[in-house]
Amino acid sequence: FRERVVTYMTSLQDQIVTEFERDGLTFRRESWSRHEGGVGLSCTFPPAHSTSSGYPIEKAGVNVSTIYGTLSQKVLEQLRPSHASLKEVNHSCSFFTTGLSLILHPQNPHVSTVHANYRYFEVLDGPLNSQESTESVGDTKSSPKVLAWWFGVIADLNPTYLYEDDVKHFHSTLKEACDLHRPGLYPVFKASCDNYIYIPHRNEYRGVGGVRFDEMDSDAMCSLLLVNEPDLPEAMLARLSSWESLFELTQRLGNAFLPSFLPILNRRSSTTVTAAERRWQLLRRGRAVEFSLIVDRGTKFGLATPGIKAENVLITMPPKASWEYMSEMGEEEGTEEAKLLEVLRSPRTWA
Amino acid sequence: FRERVVTYMTSLQDQIVTEFERDGLTFRRESWSRHEGGVGLSCTFPPAHSTSSGYPIEKAGVNVSTIYGTLSQKVLEQLRPSHASLKEVNHSCSFFTTGLSLILHPQNPHVSTVHANYRYFEVLDGPLNSQESTESVGDTKSSPKVLAWWFGVIADLNPTYLYEDDVKHFHSTLKEACDLHRPGLYPVFKASCDNYIYIPHRNEYRGVGGVRFDEMDSDAMCSLLLVNEPDLPEAMLARLSSWESLFELTQRLGNAFLPSFLPILNRRSSTTVTAAERRWQLLRRGRAVEFSLIVDRGTKFGLATPGIKAENVLITMPPKASWEYMSEMGEEEGTEEAKLLEVLRSPRTWA
Repeated sequence: FRERVVTYMTSLQDQIVTEFERDGLTFRRESWSRHEGGVGLSCTFPPAHSTSSGYPIEKAGVNVSTIYGTLSQKVLEQLRPSHASLKEVNHSCSFFTTGLSLILHPQNPHVSTVHANYRYFEVLDGPLNSQESTESVGDTKSSPKVLAWWFGVIADLNPTYLYEDDVKHFHSTLKEACDLHRPGLYPVFKASCDNYIYIPHRNEYRGVGGVRFDEMDSDAMCSLLLVNEPDLPEAMLARLSSWESLFELTQRLGNAFLPSFLPILNRRSSTTVTAAERRWQLLRRGRAVEFSLIVDRGTKFGLATPGIKAENVLITMPPKASWEYMSEMGEEEGTEEAKLLEVLRSPRTWA
Repeated sequence: FRERVVTYMTSLQDQIVTEFERDGLTFRRESWSRHEGGVGLSCTFPPAHSTSSGYPIEKAGVNVSTIYGTLSQKVLEQLRPSHASLKEVNHSCSFFTTGLSLILHPQNPHVSTVHANYRYFEVLDGPLNSQESTESVGDTKSSPKVLAWWFGVIADLNPTYLYEDDVKHFHSTLKEACDLHRPGLYPVFKASCDNYIYIPHRNEYRGVGGVRFDEMDSDAMCSLLLVNEPDLPEAMLARLSSWESLFELTQRLGNAFLPSFLPILNRRSSTTVTAAERRWQLLRRGRAVEFSLIVDRGTKFGLATPGIKAENVLITMPPKASWEYMSEMGEEEGTEEAKLLEVLRSPRTWA
């Protein structure tokens, strides 16, 4: 199971990076390993500071990481309530997680910034060695038992200027992927995403959302399906909430990334940019920094994980950001900036 | 007591802003009041986005705020251990705090960024009304009793390039102010500042420090003095740790701000700047953003205080900042950038 997910994450990373490299960008590839257990490959743009101008992307990170180690007692306590299988575990557990994290900061303010994270997580009753972490092993007796597993996905769009067609395209593409699993899931995932990207101290959302789910295992999917379809046949319920099926949903969403974003990048990258538009882009990026460093649980978890370099967690930071005290930008009704703020203050239905 | 501190904070703000306005800068003045109790005056530069270039300062905030209200049970529990008078309090308390917060982001990377905060805090056994908060009242019976009070100060320098003379001047000026209270205090305040500005995820300090103390009341000052001078006469000990004396120490440090920083600003503001130096300045400011949003307890407290606008807390944010993945700047030994990083990784003695 673990090996198949790692293989998928790696191939998705390769697919995305290859697509951008076909457009003339060259990524920097940085492999790393974690003393406590785990490896990663960070693909980042620009490969060096001086080569960032003249490309549609100003800064990007497309990273796969696979890490494992001892699960802290604190995290175990947090996981217990939502995972029946962990309720009576009282020995020390280990964890395994693999995933792809992605951020693209476009050069042009008319193109949205986009984030995505596709993740798989396991809680095990004993430690993994480096071979077991990613390869199938013959002697299953020696392998630690999987006590809980789940998938997590987030993909969301953060525009500097609101192009409704772009937002609709992004949401529709993701909705289609969700609908292939089962219609009725997308609105729940959309609401979960909005909820996650809320910035309390600004009373504002970090963008126009997308889809999100976390700790998605069979129980969680069953509950979700039964809300919409209480009479769903048992066999259908079992199939749609199986490991295979949730892995397939994760892959569908991962595969939807390029089709959801590339058309937006392609049709807006050559729009003429004024100094005021660039200024607004840097201000909006300042808000995104506030989200990442104050609100985002992913950043907190990353920085608190021993052996993970801050550089690899903070790869999400924008190339440049700015802050103005009580900026007047966005305050004047009817402007393009005010139009964006309005939708960041009250999320809309897009698909 | 409260009135005297508010008067001092306001006059210090006026003194600092006037000094900069004499140099041709014009500050924006923004008064605010907090529904839950309190008022403030934010003096910020630039007054509008377009007027920031051509001045030695790129962005500044010199703000006085006076707030009061109910002290949360959570904060009370945190305060109990270090304040004997709060140990047996089991009813709900209120708080009063007044202070000046200051940040100056210079235009020129050869000038250090500087931060300062001078603060007074009271815990009271009942609510204050708006008149009592800042004015002496005739009928003392109706005024709530002060259960605990303390002063807090931080003043620290964050250079982009290391000019040892500047750092020595800054530290020496602050040391002199501390020595006037009693020699032997400065090293303790210097260590407390270094401790506060440490950025764990970078294993790096936010600058070259300065002085800091917090929750400084009579008990805390007595303990400090007795460490160095166990035989200090009782009367001397009482005098040096009195409210009057600690208020005087706070004022000495507040008054030391301009002499500690102005010479640095004046002698480096016209140094020629290269594009590489500006780039390094924005990268260093990125680190300062990480400190403010991830580490700084002041920011967390501010954002968590109901009725305080995020804009007034995040006034500390730099005008512009940048992030590069695994930047090579600072990596090459012998460069000016590497020289700075070295001192940010192992704090030195400066005075």
